[in-house]
Amino acid sequence: MNPFEQTIQSTRSRARTGVLTTPHGKLSTPFFMPIATRGAVKTISTFDLDRLGTPILLSNTYHLWLRPGLDVLRARGGLHHFMDWSGAILTDSGGFQVFSLEGLRKLTEEGVKFQSHIDGAPLLLTPELCMEIQRTIGSDICMCLDVCTKLPATREAIQGAAEMTTRWAARSRIAFDVLRENSFNPGALLFGIVQGGVEKDVRRSSATSLMEIGFEGYSIGGLSVGEPFEQACDMLDELDTILPRTSPRYFMGGAQPHEILGYVKRGIDMFDCVLPTRNARHGHVYQFVHDDLTRPDFYQVVHVTNERWKQSDQPLIDEQRYVVDVELARYSFGYLRHLFSVQEMLGARLATLMNLRFYFELMRRIREGIEQGTV
Amino acid sequence: MNPFEQTIQSTRSRARTGVLTTPHGKLSTPFFMPIATRGAVKTISTFDLDRLGTPILLSNTYHLWLRPGLDVLRARGGLHHFMDWSGAILTDSGGFQVFSLEGLRKLTEEGVKFQSHIDGAPLLLTPELCMEIQRTIGSDICMCLDVCTKLPATREAIQGAAEMTTRWAARSRIAFDVLRENSFNPGALLFGIVQGGVEKDVRRSSATSLMEIGFEGYSIGGLSVGEPFEQACDMLDELDTILPRTSPRYFMGGAQPHEILGYVKRGIDMFDCVLPTRNARHGHVYQFVHDDLTRPDFYQVVHVTNERWKQSDQPLIDEQRYVVDVELARYSFGYLRHLFSVQEMLGARLATLMNLRFYFELMRRIREGIEQGTV
Repeated sequence: MNPFEQTIQSTRSRARTGVLTTPHGKLSTPFFMPIATRGAVKTISTFDLDRLGTPILLSNTYHLWLRPGLDVLRARGGLHHFMDWSGAILTDSGGFQVFSLEGLRKLTEEGVKFQSHIDGAPLLLTPELCMEIQRTIGSDICMCLDVCTKLPATREAIQGAAEMTTRWAARSRIAFDVLRENSFNPGALLFGIVQGGVEKDVRRSSATSLMEIGFEGYSIGGLSVGEPFEQACDMLDELDTILPRTSPRYFMGGAQPHEILGYVKRGIDMFDCVLPTRNARHGHVYQFVHDDLTRPDFYQVVHVTNERWKQSDQPLIDEQRYVVDVELARYSFGYLRHLFSVQEMLGARLATLMNLRFYFELMRRIREGIEQGTV
Repeated sequence: MNPFEQTIQSTRSRARTGVLTTPHGKLSTPFFMPIATRGAVKTISTFDLDRLGTPILLSNTYHLWLRPGLDVLRARGGLHHFMDWSGAILTDSGGFQVFSLEGLRKLTEEGVKFQSHIDGAPLLLTPELCMEIQRTIGSDICMCLDVCTKLPATREAIQGAAEMTTRWAARSRIAFDVLRENSFNPGALLFGIVQGGVEKDVRRSSATSLMEIGFEGYSIGGLSVGEPFEQACDMLDELDTILPRTSPRYFMGGAQPHEILGYVKRGIDMFDCVLPTRNARHGHVYQFVHDDLTRPDFYQVVHVTNERWKQSDQPLIDEQRYVVDVELARYSFGYLRHLFSVQEMLGARLATLMNLRFYFELMRRIREGIEQGTV
């Protein structure tokens, strides 16, 4: 049974709404996932995520493998129980982290050998082990281990990485299905990852060969790594003609609000991004400026550390819609600025709640816009 | 009208329960105040303090004077509004902070000259200015500016400091009363601070002369600075014979749970302490071991960073009594240990909520023990 159902196709763009059914909830697409790399979204708990109405979070295979480790995750019955989270969990494969590590790293057909960033211990991550880890985490949406190439790279290198990613995806599909019965979360979904840098034909053949293997959804990796927004859009336009409209599409990697809107219009259903949480810790806060999302200036990023907020009694949010708003509506920008100026951690925390709320509200407005024919 | 009313006198000790009426609530004594030095209890918001059932918090005159500054506090209508706190606020005078600062410091009859710890700017804090700052903060319970002596000191130095503290207290009383009409919080209370180190006769004369001026309550300063617990108890025994039973008594400075119990038995009504919040940030968590407070081992301090908690699925709290428990009951010691091991700020936050909950529950059990004749 296909876990994804498209509900409304925009008449203005290739944007669409849909429902993705996971063992931990039916998720309205397009959606946004906050990042809980090590089993926690920085500064906030799953109690807070509930108050934000969070449908799904993203965690990291590589980091959870090292700490708390598979023994703990196995004994606790998986990450949902460990962090007391009843929503859905997507795990990325850890490939990006492993290929980003400093130090020696050896890539073979079998997998990737590297050293733990914690104690330097030699490790070998294979597509099969990557499935076993994600099955132990109990993730709802798992990613195949992919080969990430550092850019700039030659066309040959990009093509080689994409082809190895496909061969690993085939092994991942088998391992994932074999492990189903012994998993905390047998109904989990597996996504393949389209690679190919900014080479259109490599992207095309990557997508085509993954579709031949068959996955519950398709991730688009290797973008959002410094290339211009327009180039990412070109790749999405290309892939839109190939990837099945019957499957969800996940744009991996960060995106500013206006970029998310642009990608949604090119048929993307799922997003994650470290920006709302990381920016929050620097006192950078997202705010809607106009209800009309078609205006290029529909939002702004405010630096609350700025002197101009010192005397502000403007509340942190201007209307109450989410459970967390009962808390956020109590405080002013002046108080938030004070917290940053005296280095109180509460500042980072309140800004994190504000920014996640903004991204969730952004997705809600985008879904509404698709339904109303404005996106 | 006396804002303090004693309700029950223990039959086993000089412990008592009572009610202290402030402009922001009737407070059951003995009570504990969490420390919000710079207008925030570290890692938590006033929303969280409400969930903990916090009746009163402590903030700091010196720190708020420098940041956010009197202009901001004045424009916002005081600290209650600035941090959205409807409970009571006690402010210490800032004397302890000023006398603890490194660098040049000049003490005269007028006040104390020193340099800002932020930008080195020369500042003069007088008893009158200290009242003006606390009136601008809108504190419910204000402290007179006192002279703190670094120990060890000669008897003459200790006596001199105590006498100057009394002369400053007389000036403070006048300034405080004059400022009443133009305050955000005209019904605030003023406490005098008994000094005198561990010299009994100096303590006696300090208390007597403060009582002649007349205050709504009496603070005991200059203890909890490294002297043995028994010596602090000796001073409290001495003062118990002098201080009026019709007024509340505030023990200034930190105390471990068993010390708080000991001080309550010597007639103390009010406490603050940085230990629950500071220890939390190091992963040290307070726990009750026995219901019977008379047992010397009625509590323990657990180091959650220890390996032994790695596989623990024990919930952070063992019964639900406070609003915040809905959140705390969700997480295990194993998860908390993981958060500390991967340096997630959420660990410090959850431990802070746990430790404050412990101190509030300690005070509740002490009050219950007084009522039931067991303390």
